[in-house]
Amino acid sequence: MAGNSIGTIFKLTTFGESHGEALGGIIDGCPSNVLLDFDAIQFEMQRRKPGQSSIVTQRKEEDEVQFLSGVFEGKTTGTPIGFIIPNTNQKSEDYSHIKDTYRPSHADYVYEKKYGIRDYRGGGRSSARETASRVVAGAIAKQIIPTIKINAFVSSVGEIFIDKPYQDLDFSKIESNAVRCPDLATAEKMEAYIREIKKQGDSVGGTITCVIQNVPIGLGEPVFDKLHAELGKAMLSINAVHGFEYGSGFCGAKMKGSEHNDSYNEDGTTKSNLSGGIQGGISNGMDIYFRVAFKPVATLLQKQDVLTNQNEIIVQQGKGRHDPCVVPRAVPIVEAMAALVIADYYLLNKTYQTQ
Amino acid sequence: MAGNSIGTIFKLTTFGESHGEALGGIIDGCPSNVLLDFDAIQFEMQRRKPGQSSIVTQRKEEDEVQFLSGVFEGKTTGTPIGFIIPNTNQKSEDYSHIKDTYRPSHADYVYEKKYGIRDYRGGGRSSARETASRVVAGAIAKQIIPTIKINAFVSSVGEIFIDKPYQDLDFSKIESNAVRCPDLATAEKMEAYIREIKKQGDSVGGTITCVIQNVPIGLGEPVFDKLHAELGKAMLSINAVHGFEYGSGFCGAKMKGSEHNDSYNEDGTTKSNLSGGIQGGISNGMDIYFRVAFKPVATLLQKQDVLTNQNEIIVQQGKGRHDPCVVPRAVPIVEAMAALVIADYYLLNKTYQTQ
Amino acid sequence: MAGNSIGTIFKLTTFGESHGEALGGIIDGCPSNVLLDFDAIQFEMQRRKPGQSSIVTQRKEEDEVQFLSGVFEGKTTGTPIGFIIPNTNQKSEDYSHIKDTYRPSHADYVYEKKYGIRDYRGGGRSSARETASRVVAGAIAKQIIPTIKINAFVSSVGEIFIDKPYQDLDFSKIESNAVRCPDLATAEKMEAYIREIKKQGDSVGGTITCVIQNVPIGLGEPVFDKLHAELGKAMLSINAVHGFEYGSGFCGAKMKGSEHNDSYNEDGTTKSNLSGGIQGGISNGMDIYFRVAFKPVATLLQKQDVLTNQNEIIVQQGKGRHDPCVVPRAVPIVEAMAALVIADYYLLNKTYQTQ
Amino acid sequence: MAGNSIGTIFKLTTFGESHGEALGGIIDGCPSNVLLDFDAIQFEMQRRKPGQSSIVTQRKEEDEVQFLSGVFEGKTTGTPIGFIIPNTNQKSEDYSHIKDTYRPSHADYVYEKKYGIRDYRGGGRSSARETASRVVAGAIAKQIIPTIKINAFVSSVGEIFIDKPYQDLDFSKIESNAVRCPDLATAEKMEAYIREIKKQGDSVGGTITCVIQNVPIGLGEPVFDKLHAELGKAMLSINAVHGFEYGSGFCGAKMKGSEHNDSYNEDGTTKSNLSGGIQGGISNGMDIYFRVAFKPVATLLQKQDVLTNQNEIIVQQGKGRHDPCVVPRAVPIVEAMAALVIADYYLLNKTYQTQ
Repeated sequence: MAGNSIGTIFKLTTFGESHGEALGGIIDGCPSNVLLDFDAIQFEMQRRKPGQSSIVTQRKEEDEVQFLSGVFEGKTTGTPIGFIIPNTNQKSEDYSHIKDTYRPSHADYVYEKKYGIRDYRGGGRSSARETASRVVAGAIAKQIIPTIKINAFVSSVGEIFIDKPYQDLDFSKIESNAVRCPDLATAEKMEAYIREIKKQGDSVGGTITCVIQNVPIGLGEPVFDKLHAELGKAMLSINAVHGFEYGSGFCGAKMKGSEHNDSYNEDGTTKSNLSGGIQGGISNGMDIYFRVAFKPVATLLQKQDVLTNQNEIIVQQGKGRHDPCVVPRAVPIVEAMAALVIADYYLLNKTYQTQ
Repeated sequence: MAGNSIGTIFKLTTFGESHGEALGGIIDGCPSNVLLDFDAIQFEMQRRKPGQSSIVTQRKEEDEVQFLSGVFEGKTTGTPIGFIIPNTNQKSEDYSHIKDTYRPSHADYVYEKKYGIRDYRGGGRSSARETASRVVAGAIAKQIIPTIKINAFVSSVGEIFIDKPYQDLDFSKIESNAVRCPDLATAEKMEAYIREIKKQGDSVGGTITCVIQNVPIGLGEPVFDKLHAELGKAMLSINAVHGFEYGSGFCGAKMKGSEHNDSYNEDGTTKSNLSGGIQGGISNGMDIYFRVAFKPVATLLQKQDVLTNQNEIIVQQGKGRHDPCVVPRAVPIVEAMAALVIADYYLLNKTYQTQ
Repeated sequence: MAGNSIGTIFKLTTFGESHGEALGGIIDGCPSNVLLDFDAIQFEMQRRKPGQSSIVTQRKEEDEVQFLSGVFEGKTTGTPIGFIIPNTNQKSEDYSHIKDTYRPSHADYVYEKKYGIRDYRGGGRSSARETASRVVAGAIAKQIIPTIKINAFVSSVGEIFIDKPYQDLDFSKIESNAVRCPDLATAEKMEAYIREIKKQGDSVGGTITCVIQNVPIGLGEPVFDKLHAELGKAMLSINAVHGFEYGSGFCGAKMKGSEHNDSYNEDGTTKSNLSGGIQGGISNGMDIYFRVAFKPVATLLQKQDVLTNQNEIIVQQGKGRHDPCVVPRAVPIVEAMAALVIADYYLLNKTYQTQ
Repeated sequence: MAGNSIGTIFKLTTFGESHGEALGGIIDGCPSNVLLDFDAIQFEMQRRKPGQSSIVTQRKEEDEVQFLSGVFEGKTTGTPIGFIIPNTNQKSEDYSHIKDTYRPSHADYVYEKKYGIRDYRGGGRSSARETASRVVAGAIAKQIIPTIKINAFVSSVGEIFIDKPYQDLDFSKIESNAVRCPDLATAEKMEAYIREIKKQGDSVGGTITCVIQNVPIGLGEPVFDKLHAELGKAMLSINAVHGFEYGSGFCGAKMKGSEHNDSYNEDGTTKSNLSGGIQGGISNGMDIYFRVAFKPVATLLQKQDVLTNQNEIIVQQGKGRHDPCVVPRAVPIVEAMAALVIADYYLLNKTYQTQ
């Protein structure tokens, strides 16, 4: 109800503010008897972690997950998996200056108005730090559907973009550079641009493309819970996301049906895939691919006008350690959200079988 | 679970195939004692109805709603509102040719694979006829939130688009033309283009822009159920939708933070509104606006390769009466889905108050 | 949310007032490709129907179910099953006298206070007529779990009760008499007593016992959704039910652990079954059995004090055609609710399997 | 889905096994800006805690709650309240003997069969230690509805019972004795009996009565989620509960309607209250009262036959520190569950208002 859960069968509920004692969550409905790969979970946490390269925020967050339940002798037991990620290194003093002010394009103001109270330390619940819990759950979800391959990567930063179809990219190069762009020439340009932006104390937006391969036919529910609708919601729930398109996306809106239809091969695969692997909300076995737009983060290391809770406008100098461009660190988050949606539908699909 | 419901407090569940006896739904959680305007409901049905102009499908659907419960002496009673829309004029014979074949970019194939059975008559459950039930519920939802104004309109057809910001448009012109485009010069071009496409037996995509005004501050739930995430899911659940963006959208991904941030006025409004009326998933009182991309409909009045259930490719001539461009009739559906989401969050928001 | 749905995977939502145009519901999540036995559904409707014998109400309700969707060529398609039961023979005039009054121990008063409006005709939504929709859905649920046997029967009427364990009863005798009591000597006494009560214009309570056999091990979810908790809720949701006990029930509260524990046999079955086939909320393969207490129905054909909406007490003569004892007709409802719960958990259980 | 959540608006999800690192939970949907009384929370924890008197188990559990989120400067913020209760003093060695055996009337066997794996230490997830999380959440729920008074007490132990109506009892005496029975003469007998049972290494069942006073009219949802149905489910979800009755309960099933109906006073209150404060599933403002039956706990300090995972029956001596009678410690749990249900419906009720 209150928006802190995702999924129906494989269900994640998260809690935690950026400067509270800990973040965490509960995964309910994870199948039992799954031998968990904890290194794989920690690997995803490292990918999301601040401070991993010079182009991302230098905040230090240890991001060590502690599993409190639902796992016994390394295996899931079918009972809820409770976990916490302690907030070990949060500097509360960095945020005292925003106690009585609302920063532009932050959630400060609306939280105060909605709830009548606000944990002003570092964004509180609206901080992207919350996504750490999503990455934990997503890393477990991936292990429920090991044959399905999920690869996300940075496809644009500002005006710089990869001008190739994803089929021409080598996904094994994604982790080879700080931007997480598999096209290395483009990656270099992006990295240089982000350094420039950082010097200016500014920020810049970007897009992430995600490709899901080896999906069984039949995942997704028709009508309101179409597979792409649920993927879209999951992506739009990530901080700073302003757009989602799958398959032909917004380009498809300019096309004619005779250009857009995907003709079948005799085995049920299709010659083209403008449908993006989904027909009528249900996977058709072709690659699912989609693109997610992130706006530039609102926190700048510049002077900006802010609103006070006394309804005055004052000038404030932004400070702290923030990402000049959020997309490199958002790549594992996009993958995690995709894994949560796909694993959930994978499990739900079993209920259609009477035998 | 099975994807036929939307909403949490104001909850709609729909049923019905395009060629069954009737479509319909249940609205559960509608506030009591609301005097319903039935003409307003029927007006929305007329807007969605096929055959209303020469540029949409000439199929006749009466689309008369019958309310079976939940309304007494013209007022809602707080009990579930059950309604049906009989399928009075469905020509089953039109569809017999697709019994054993799967049309390209339709849901025929995936339904067959997912369920092991398929109502092949006219798309069955995957037909856009299902959206008639959404329009009924959306028209009621609008009456729950009468002070909030929701206006959707066609903003592009193929390559033709309105090149003005929505603030320069007169929403009272939306219903003045068959395309539902408030910019009349553009509307004329769109209409001419759709006629051309129709002559070719082809179809074309388009986009719809929706603007929601006079929204109270505080609607939306943080984290997974952000207001724009739920709006995005609702829009992506409409047949043929391939993309959703709100506020600055995909353009925002190219911008710098210093350009993108919306500075406050002293009263809490903002000078610009690239945030699209939503901060951290919660409405901030500014206009909410978003754009929805529709692919061209897959049914063409041309010869196309189709797959048979014997795994052969054969050529089939498309027939029947279909929309060359779906966006004019999708305008009331976009509004209905927006109304469902906003009304739901409006009611949910009451639960945060202890007094 | 608003209480008109039951189930998670196999989910029923109902609508309809006793004197509206129709009752009905939507079953969402029914497995596909199940060949439905429509005679079996109608048979259950006949069992619930008023007027079937001289000891039940002589109201005539045709109770003919019309399926509007989700079934194609006799089989379920996996899409929602919408159905209606028209209210063909409701005499509205019978109820005009209660428009401005609240009958004792009816829901009139609380509906008016909760919703600010009330469909006063015949109890409206609070009428037991709503259970017709449950019987439809329960009859379909039974067909999802055909190997599981559900038998309910009347175990007491007033002070008259069967003084044998259920193992000594022949369930094939349940339908042999108007009371639905398989112990024929007791059945006769019950029937005579109900006739006597009817003559007095009074009503009497009773209990129904339900036995579920051949249940697979493992149904039920631990903690909040224990199998017996869900069964209990389902039974308590039936009109007039005031109590639920399973296995040893209230008697078990008087026992010692050394008497109560069920020793195992080597095959995992147990020598005794005071646990009622459920351990820790999960079925253990033994018979599940429980008992449901129904209070006497509140409508009497006697003079009674009633409250007016002007806060006066006046004397009113009860009239109409009502059941002197509700339990005989409640037997199929108890079975239907049990079937809904068991089928739902049966389907949910599939999601624990990763392969 | 997987049964670890309760509530819709005020929603609790719990995790944790008896011998894992910690138990805990997330409360989602708690209204914001509520100043929490932490002493009141800890007081409820003390009431549930083992080792508080000589007639309950002598296990030591510190049961100190740590709040990790959702509370800021002592007030709720409207974001999810995450909390943990570390398992500080669990003696794993006590349970090694049950690794390969299934104890009679425990959940060992069904967990193993359902999940294919089992955390055998001390009952794992099926341990009543899980209820500690419920007491935390219930104590917060009580603070949402401060004017509603919830009092539970032990009404019987074995064959010993209070033979007075609850109106003749002084609830302030409940905490005055180890049994939590407000009738002191009966309390003494109960205590003596429990000591006797304890000496025998046996256990005994009992009942708890709960009275909820000062309830606003209109709480509860009709049809499937009737107030008493939800209360019943909540109670039946407590470990060892085998029965639930409210108002006249099972006695009501023996009565005639003319005896059972509650006549109105002119102010809408009723002269009698056999309805138990609920009509048609909705509170009517009178006292809500119900009774809960607990079977004797299955763990005995005696020799018992157990089943091995090699399908052999062996004799095992029960050991450890267990409650001879669970009802004294279950009193705060019953109150907590009642508070969760009432608070949830209290909040949900706000959504019916359009203004």
